[in-house]
Amino acid sequence: MTKQIDVKEAAEILKSCEDVYILIHMNPDGDCIGSGYSLQAVFRKMGKRAKVLCADPIPERFAFLLPEKEEENFSAKKIIALDCADEKRLGDLEEEYAGKINLCIDHHISNTGYAEKTLVEPEVSSACEVLYKVYRAMGVEFTKQIAECLYTGISTDTGCFKFNCAKADTHQIVSEIMREFPEIRYDQINRNMFDVKSRSRIQAEMLMLSQMEYYLDGRCTMIWQTKKICEENQLDPKDMEGLTALPLQPDGVKVGITLRELENQEYRVSLRAADEQVNVSEICAQFGGGGHVRAAGCYMKGTPEEVRQKLLEALRKVLP
Amino acid sequence: MTKQIDVKEAAEILKSCEDVYILIHMNPDGDCIGSGYSLQAVFRKMGKRAKVLCADPIPERFAFLLPEKEEENFSAKKIIALDCADEKRLGDLEEEYAGKINLCIDHHISNTGYAEKTLVEPEVSSACEVLYKVYRAMGVEFTKQIAECLYTGISTDTGCFKFNCAKADTHQIVSEIMREFPEIRYDQINRNMFDVKSRSRIQAEMLMLSQMEYYLDGRCTMIWQTKKICEENQLDPKDMEGLTALPLQPDGVKVGITLRELENQEYRVSLRAADEQVNVSEICAQFGGGGHVRAAGCYMKGTPEEVRQKLLEALRKVLP
Repeated sequence: MTKQIDVKEAAEILKSCEDVYILIHMNPDGDCIGSGYSLQAVFRKMGKRAKVLCADPIPERFAFLLPEKEEENFSAKKIIALDCADEKRLGDLEEEYAGKINLCIDHHISNTGYAEKTLVEPEVSSACEVLYKVYRAMGVEFTKQIAECLYTGISTDTGCFKFNCAKADTHQIVSEIMREFPEIRYDQINRNMFDVKSRSRIQAEMLMLSQMEYYLDGRCTMIWQTKKICEENQLDPKDMEGLTALPLQPDGVKVGITLRELENQEYRVSLRAADEQVNVSEICAQFGGGGHVRAAGCYMKGTPEEVRQKLLEALRKVLP
Repeated sequence: MTKQIDVKEAAEILKSCEDVYILIHMNPDGDCIGSGYSLQAVFRKMGKRAKVLCADPIPERFAFLLPEKEEENFSAKKIIALDCADEKRLGDLEEEYAGKINLCIDHHISNTGYAEKTLVEPEVSSACEVLYKVYRAMGVEFTKQIAECLYTGISTDTGCFKFNCAKADTHQIVSEIMREFPEIRYDQINRNMFDVKSRSRIQAEMLMLSQMEYYLDGRCTMIWQTKKICEENQLDPKDMEGLTALPLQPDGVKVGITLRELENQEYRVSLRAADEQVNVSEICAQFGGGGHVRAAGCYMKGTPEEVRQKLLEALRKVLP
């Protein structure tokens, strides 16, 4: 059973610990990368050793957030997990670190409380926004790198301030970061995070949109990233990441589903809801998954037809 | 010659005037609509008559910003133009109102100073952000409708806080609006402004992307909205509005151009720059147009090949 702590206590722990491994979740996104590398920078500013561990490589577009020089090897005295709701989300790091995590800082309502101590603020946009408050409580002076990490995490997890999780506090924090670092090219960060695409990515999106399936009177859409489609169209797996917003585009859609074929008839299923009328986290929980009210995921097995019918059955009961 | 005034003087003028026509630009967008209807609401709160005039109809997705009841007819004692850099941008209203505008509030650096008095703040994200400051200087108490108008204008003109014009002040203002009206569904506004598309709009975007032309080693892209393409694919002209961000998507593009065929071999040409290395306002000025550093437009005549060559020639000289 984890001990729930507040921002102040988390700040005290961070100030007192040293030689830290910072674990972030697999398939890393802007928020966990911004969280991890901002915290590493904070430790380093205090003259402490810290390194960020991730089961998967950091995508190229986040390279600007990484430190110029990585830490030499050292053994961890403290293990901290960031933006990670469940130990399973550690991916290949789970085996080594499960049960050994001293502190978790997160913003997922579904956090399982796997760490010794947990600071989880489910009302907050992003782990980076939680960390901003922790750093302020620590009295840390920001560097440009820390500011870029935090901005990137907040911006990416709020869909560039588009989602409901972008609240008055979020904008105020961003305002404070920008006031302190007006020289950062926030617009270029956003352009690289949200707009710039390779030509092959543009092709992949067009293909997914053109094959989008409409169900339940257009209230549910599905896009299928099957191995067959990817092979036939010579799509790069990299170009198939993060397409989960596409099925929510058409007017009238309530739930948009992205299904990605893994091995052995297994699918990674991502549900996105247009508003709170449907809690997709509850739907994913029926299939052993979880997440947020409007963005959740699960793994499902079966033929496409079986998986499709299970999802549509679950949705038919709850769709407005 | 216009008299340049500051926020305080604009606030004084608005407090003292009555029976106002508020003119906004043709092809109205979120910023001029939010500006116009927020100012109308402010006047009405003060018990004054005001109506918003626009040469073109207000698009359906902005209907939520309009007042429940329109003003009865009255004659104007004061004429105010908002978010309108040039009298030409008044469209069909130009003939009647050119030379008669008492006050202009705007944020375009290219404002021609056509009004008797002008408040122009080119560093500010949107006319709505300028107006926010004016309303505060007036001591106006906001209503939900005023807040929604201002948020919509700021959000749409900053590309949902993505662009360089979204600065510390912008986020602080949004934070203040959200703090006062936490019940507004800002995320639904953003979803309706940026994400939701009709199926026919999705088709139109796919078509434009699939026919995108790459020039100058991929640093310049063009999409052509010719009458022929629209007719052949049965595209609705409504679905061809606001596609100017598409040509900036591909990695490596510096300037993305959207060309819309009007009548008699005339094109409405929209240039968008990836960063400030190219000032597209200067390029458009060569063809009698103008705008911002990274977003500008002009009208050009000729065959597609002539127009294309003129643009590429102008760009070849300045592209990094």
